[in-house]
Amino acid sequence: MRMASLRTDSRELQLLLSLSLILCIICFISGCDSSESNNTIFTIDSLRDSLEKQEDFIVFCLIERARFPHNSPAYSSSSGGRRVMSSSSLAELFVRETEAIQAKFGRYQNPEELPFFPHDHTPIQAAAEAPPPFKFPQFLDPAASSVNVSRDIWNIYFGDLLQLITTDGDDGNYQQAAASDLVCLQALSKRIHYGRFVAEVKFRDSPSTYIPAIHAKDSETLTELVTSKAVEETVIERVKKKAEVFGQTVTVDTGGVSGVAMDVNATNTYKVDPSVASKLYAEWVIPLTKQVEVDYLLHRLD
Amino acid sequence: MRMASLRTDSRELQLLLSLSLILCIICFISGCDSSESNNTIFTIDSLRDSLEKQEDFIVFCLIERARFPHNSPAYSSSSGGRRVMSSSSLAELFVRETEAIQAKFGRYQNPEELPFFPHDHTPIQAAAEAPPPFKFPQFLDPAASSVNVSRDIWNIYFGDLLQLITTDGDDGNYQQAAASDLVCLQALSKRIHYGRFVAEVKFRDSPSTYIPAIHAKDSETLTELVTSKAVEETVIERVKKKAEVFGQTVTVDTGGVSGVAMDVNATNTYKVDPSVASKLYAEWVIPLTKQVEVDYLLHRLD
Repeated sequence: MRMASLRTDSRELQLLLSLSLILCIICFISGCDSSESNNTIFTIDSLRDSLEKQEDFIVFCLIERARFPHNSPAYSSSSGGRRVMSSSSLAELFVRETEAIQAKFGRYQNPEELPFFPHDHTPIQAAAEAPPPFKFPQFLDPAASSVNVSRDIWNIYFGDLLQLITTDGDDGNYQQAAASDLVCLQALSKRIHYGRFVAEVKFRDSPSTYIPAIHAKDSETLTELVTSKAVEETVIERVKKKAEVFGQTVTVDTGGVSGVAMDVNATNTYKVDPSVASKLYAEWVIPLTKQVEVDYLLHRLD
Repeated sequence: MRMASLRTDSRELQLLLSLSLILCIICFISGCDSSESNNTIFTIDSLRDSLEKQEDFIVFCLIERARFPHNSPAYSSSSGGRRVMSSSSLAELFVRETEAIQAKFGRYQNPEELPFFPHDHTPIQAAAEAPPPFKFPQFLDPAASSVNVSRDIWNIYFGDLLQLITTDGDDGNYQQAAASDLVCLQALSKRIHYGRFVAEVKFRDSPSTYIPAIHAKDSETLTELVTSKAVEETVIERVKKKAEVFGQTVTVDTGGVSGVAMDVNATNTYKVDPSVASKLYAEWVIPLTKQVEVDYLLHRLD
C-alpha cells in the first residue's frame, strides 16, 4: 500500500516536472517573464478599452488648452514669429523643468509614459516617506520598447495643432498655457506610444503572421498587417462626436435630451472645432501610432 | 482775433483741468488705478460667464482624477491610513515642488491665481528669452485681496472629495494622480477665490448697500447681501448636468441625439457620480465662495 503510494507520487512528480518544463519553454519562446503571467494583463480588447478612454482625456486636454489664447510670447524667441518654437522659450523651459520634477516623483517608472526630454529618472525612493516602488508589468520586448516618435509629436503639436485649437491673442497666462500644452503632449504621447503594446499583443497572438515581414524588414507589409480601415474610421468618427459632446455649452434651461444643448450644426459654439479633433486623429495620431507599431515590430526579433 | 483765441484756449484748458480733477477724485473714491479703466474689465456678467466656464473645467478635472484609483501610498505617511494626508507624503511634496516651478514661470503674476504654499514668486524675467511681464489689471482692493481659504480647500479635497471621486485601489501612478490632484486644487482655488472679484464688483456697483454692515463688522448681514438662492440652485443643477454630459460614455453606434448615449438614470455609467459634483458645489464651493466674499468685504474699507 505504501509502495504503491510512493510510485504514484513519483509518477505525479514526473508529470508535474514535465508540465513545468513545457511551460518554461512556452514562456521562453513567447518572450514573457516567467515570474508572472503578463499575457493576461494586456489583450487587444483591454488595449482598445484603454485607447477609447484616452480619447476622452485627449479631447478634454484640447478643450482645456483652448481656454487660453495662443499666447505667442510663451513660444517665441526674442526674434518673435508665431510659428517659431524657440528652444529657449518659456514653454520649452517649463516643460523641461516640470518633466524633471515628474521624473523625480516616479512618472517614468510606468512603461506607458515616455518623457520628451532625457532626465535623470532616479525617483525619490530614498526619501523616508516615499511609497515603495510599484511593480509595473514588464510586458514589452526590451529591445523594441525604445521606439520613440516624441520629436514628431512635439513638432506637430507646436507647429500645427496649437494654432488650430487656440485663438490669436495674449492674456498673459503663459505658464498656465504651457502647463496645458504639457498635459496635451503627454496625453498624445501616451496614446501614440501605446502602439508598442498593441504591436506586442498582435505579435504574441500570431507571431507567424509577422515574422517573415520582420525578417525581410518589410515596413510596407507590416503597415498593411497592422491597419484596419474600419476600426480607424470608427475612431475618427467617435473622436469628432466626443469633441461635440464635451465641447458643447451645457445650460439648465435649454431643451433637448435632459436639458442639454446639442446643436451639431452650430460648429462655432463648440470649445474646440470637432473637425480639428477628427483631423488630429486622421492625420497625426493614427498614422504615428501605426508608425510606432511597425517600428516596434521591426525591432521585435533583435 | 489772436487774443480771443488765447482766451478761449485758456477757458478750455481750465475746463479740461477741472474735468481731470473730478475724474481723479472719482477714481480715488472707487479705488481704481487711474492709469486704466478697470471698471470696464470686470462686470457681474463677465464674472458669471467666467465662473460658468470654470465649472466645465472643474468637472473635467474631477473626471481626469477619477481615471486613477485612490492610490493611497501617495498620501499616507509610513503610518498608513487612508484618510491621513501626511505633510511628507509624495502628493504634498509633489505639489510643493510643482508650485515652486509654476511660480518661477510667472503663474502668480495673475491675481486670479493663489498658491497653496508660500514660494519665492520672483519670476524668471532675468532670463534672456523670458517674455516681458504682462500687465494684469489690478482690480482688487490691495488690503482685502489677501483673503484666503486655501487651507480649507486643501482639507476638503484630501479629507472628503478625493474619496468620493476615486475607487479603492493602487495602480502605481502616484505622480500622475498627484498631478491631477494639483490641477483639481488649482481649479477649485481659482473658482472659490473669484469671490474676491465678485465682492469687489458688487461693492463698486452699490457701495452704500455694504458700507454700514462693513463698519458694523456684521458678517451675517453681509452673507445675506451676497446670497442669491435662485442663482445658487441654478449653479448646483447645472454642475450636475455637466457631470452627466461630460462623464458619459460616447459611442458612435449608440442611438439618441446625434448618436450620443445619454441615459440619465444609469448613474453608475458616469465617470464621476453627478451627485458628487452637485454636492461639491452645494456643500463646499458655494459656501466657501460666499465666505471669501464676506471676508473680502470686511476688509474692503481697511
